[in-house]
Amino acid sequence: MGWGDLGAFGEPSKETPNLDQMASEGMLFLDFYTASPLCSPSRAALLTGRLPVRNGFYTTNAHARNAYTPQDIVGGIPDSELLLPELLKEAGYINKIIGKWHLGHRPQFHPLKHGFDEWFGSPNCHFGPFDNRALPNIPVYRDWEMIGRYYEDFKIDLKTGESNLTQIYLQEALDFISKQEASQQPFFLYWAIDATHAPVYASKQFLGTSQRGLYGDAVREIDESIGKILNHLQKLGISENTFVFFTSDNGAALISAPKQGGSNGPFLCGKQTTFEGGMREPAIAWWPGHIPAGGVSHQLGNVMDLFTTSLSLAGLQPPGDRQIDGIDLLPAILQGKLIDRPIFYYRGNEMMAVRAGLYKAHYWTWSNSWEESSKGINFCPGQNVSGVTTHTQEEHTNLPLLFHLGRDPGEKYPLSFASDEYQRAMERISVLVQQHKATMVPGVPQLNVCDKAVMNWSPPGCEKLGKCLTPPTSDPKKCFWPH
Amino acid sequence: MGWGDLGAFGEPSKETPNLDQMASEGMLFLDFYTASPLCSPSRAALLTGRLPVRNGFYTTNAHARNAYTPQDIVGGIPDSELLLPELLKEAGYINKIIGKWHLGHRPQFHPLKHGFDEWFGSPNCHFGPFDNRALPNIPVYRDWEMIGRYYEDFKIDLKTGESNLTQIYLQEALDFISKQEASQQPFFLYWAIDATHAPVYASKQFLGTSQRGLYGDAVREIDESIGKILNHLQKLGISENTFVFFTSDNGAALISAPKQGGSNGPFLCGKQTTFEGGMREPAIAWWPGHIPAGGVSHQLGNVMDLFTTSLSLAGLQPPGDRQIDGIDLLPAILQGKLIDRPIFYYRGNEMMAVRAGLYKAHYWTWSNSWEESSKGINFCPGQNVSGVTTHTQEEHTNLPLLFHLGRDPGEKYPLSFASDEYQRAMERISVLVQQHKATMVPGVPQLNVCDKAVMNWSPPGCEKLGKCLTPPTSDPKKCFWPH
Repeated sequence: MGWGDLGAFGEPSKETPNLDQMASEGMLFLDFYTASPLCSPSRAALLTGRLPVRNGFYTTNAHARNAYTPQDIVGGIPDSELLLPELLKEAGYINKIIGKWHLGHRPQFHPLKHGFDEWFGSPNCHFGPFDNRALPNIPVYRDWEMIGRYYEDFKIDLKTGESNLTQIYLQEALDFISKQEASQQPFFLYWAIDATHAPVYASKQFLGTSQRGLYGDAVREIDESIGKILNHLQKLGISENTFVFFTSDNGAALISAPKQGGSNGPFLCGKQTTFEGGMREPAIAWWPGHIPAGGVSHQLGNVMDLFTTSLSLAGLQPPGDRQIDGIDLLPAILQGKLIDRPIFYYRGNEMMAVRAGLYKAHYWTWSNSWEESSKGINFCPGQNVSGVTTHTQEEHTNLPLLFHLGRDPGEKYPLSFASDEYQRAMERISVLVQQHKATMVPGVPQLNVCDKAVMNWSPPGCEKLGKCLTPPTSDPKKCFWPH
Repeated sequence: MGWGDLGAFGEPSKETPNLDQMASEGMLFLDFYTASPLCSPSRAALLTGRLPVRNGFYTTNAHARNAYTPQDIVGGIPDSELLLPELLKEAGYINKIIGKWHLGHRPQFHPLKHGFDEWFGSPNCHFGPFDNRALPNIPVYRDWEMIGRYYEDFKIDLKTGESNLTQIYLQEALDFISKQEASQQPFFLYWAIDATHAPVYASKQFLGTSQRGLYGDAVREIDESIGKILNHLQKLGISENTFVFFTSDNGAALISAPKQGGSNGPFLCGKQTTFEGGMREPAIAWWPGHIPAGGVSHQLGNVMDLFTTSLSLAGLQPPGDRQIDGIDLLPAILQGKLIDRPIFYYRGNEMMAVRAGLYKAHYWTWSNSWEESSKGINFCPGQNVSGVTTHTQEEHTNLPLLFHLGRDPGEKYPLSFASDEYQRAMERISVLVQQHKATMVPGVPQLNVCDKAVMNWSPPGCEKLGKCLTPPTSDPKKCFWPH
């Protein structure tokens, strides 16, 4: 989902009444970011409170490449990383993930080995259908074992776009919340649905209901589902005791637009890029009785802050033995404070840009290669800002491209290098970058090695279902990350 | 102002709390249009309920050119046109215009000759400062006589951006409303301020207060002023008896961005173009006790509808002796109905595009000429949609470029000519265009002839002020309209 996909953020069809109401009852974050313009690294960052370059969710196979966790990835979330649910356990929380895990699908990376008590969902994205020969269909797990596969037991009709997956994930969420309320045990629910990701789907009752086509149908279904979850919390009388945060893991994928891709509002480019369209996200905090209704925050936030903020809510401290990038947002959320902190925009192993206050400095620019671009792969369709949306990896380290995101949210007008404003802003930013780089200890890159043998051929539980497939011989190779 | 300049429409700094509140108490229009991507024709259309090509606010000096009313324009609003205040008079309304008139500055075009009872403001835009030799400074009128000139008696500091013009216009509005309330006479106030037009200004208390720079300062001042006007209506106890509508006369001027130009949100290009960024406008209707609070309308609306709607509110019928393009929006506003009607996008004498439902067909495309473009005049900065944002006037009459504005509000993905969807949509649109063209009787073009002798050299009242200037010899010429 992109920043511009919600009515509250200016989507011109305004079809998200539930999320808009969530905002009007809670706090809207206008300057909230992911930690990566791509799914897996962003989700790893959310759960660890650490930049992907620290928690290992990056590649060194090539410079500044977006890498994630397809079926043939060998790596995943390292044991050495401490995940939010692992820590919340100490405070008695029961943790559930519903939806897409995406932090590795081999046994050692299983979410129940990393702090979650329950899982309903899938280790990878719902790509497919596959033939179960070259590629197995993606499994769906309940806890330790798979209970079926996408396109087989969990239908997605690519022709009509129909699938009731979001409804299934919604029901799981409502059931879990009911159960936790009944047992009076605190809970952490990570509702990580994958609708709006291409191939886009929605259930029958939503198909054709949006002005925006199938993508909008999916957004509407998510919107209504979130309304039902919030309503459920209220009906159970636990809304004043439950902190809810809505956000996305990367900007809208403009490569899938307009039929399967969303909107990044006034921002430049989309998913896969470190321009604002790739990393600025819709974000809403909701906690009736605590968060003042109708609040609007310009706090620079990041998905990694949800780690630290959640710990804070549970009365826990973040681990002291490692660098944590997330900050506690509670002063911003509850007291309207503005905490001065930078945002770092990474693409793989490279810090591409940094935001401090309203200034954003690009140290590297790249959309994607000319070669890809000529094949129609376009992360910036209809947009071409000279010297900014470059098709070669352009280094600007010695003289970063600087934008004022207040006057120029679309990153179209770099400030003059000779201006006083440029000098003043870069003096400040240079210090932040120096500090950041001086203390940077990259983790072991997890997204370097791919092997068809590690794909979801025979997940645990496959025997019972008669759905075990024979893996090919192991042949580990460097993963190829084109952009 | 552009569609994307208000918080309620997704401006990422969200600095318009008063307009956002106006929307939450009233109705937000998401699909509201001007009648022209330029000031004078749009304002003429608003006050006559008729397309500029009918009321004469266009040029035939060249094909599809944007023309307006600079100081040397010879034409203006013809006597044969019936303006909204002329008609409202019949129902006992007192009519006042505050701000920019822009329908011609020669004596016969004076607003008090066209139905207004009072005027405080200026016939032209606040361009300047001029030397009073080649060009006179623009006069400011109170009713029949000028009371000073911009940059002389009404200061605008181009260096600091300081001017208290909006405050002056605000006070005029509050005073007029108070007076009308005291005399218990119904009123029509056309608050046609010109702040946010370059050169942008704001009063001292707003300078430097916006994240968006000087342009944002001006928006904030307008926002606060509108809050004060609405508050004044409420304090006087007449809010439930006063219909208020907020909108703009064209999209944000991206040529002035980022320092002096606003945002068109997710839409393509800006002022001067017939893409969505040039003509879709922020729009809010407010009438406590009548309009349901928090309403959102997808009614296709147009500034010309304010003519017909206002007449309807006053219990009057639109004139039956001429084609009126505006429709009565009250069913949409009060009962949430959706009235099926097309929107026509004109540039000068050419119907460039038409919208019906969610489809928009371009019969002609043009941003501006290559020659202008190479000089840095750019109505689509950072945007370049191949075959759409053309730099030559491209005719598509036989095979219009078709967009689905729901899935693709940014007009980036023309539908395939071969698709069933294209065929179905164009069948319907073709009929609408045929009907439109069949009944089109263009007015006498008012914006063809320019003459330096007609400029604001010696407006009435100049003698008292000692501010009369000697006009040059009359030398009428064809006006040059570059784009």
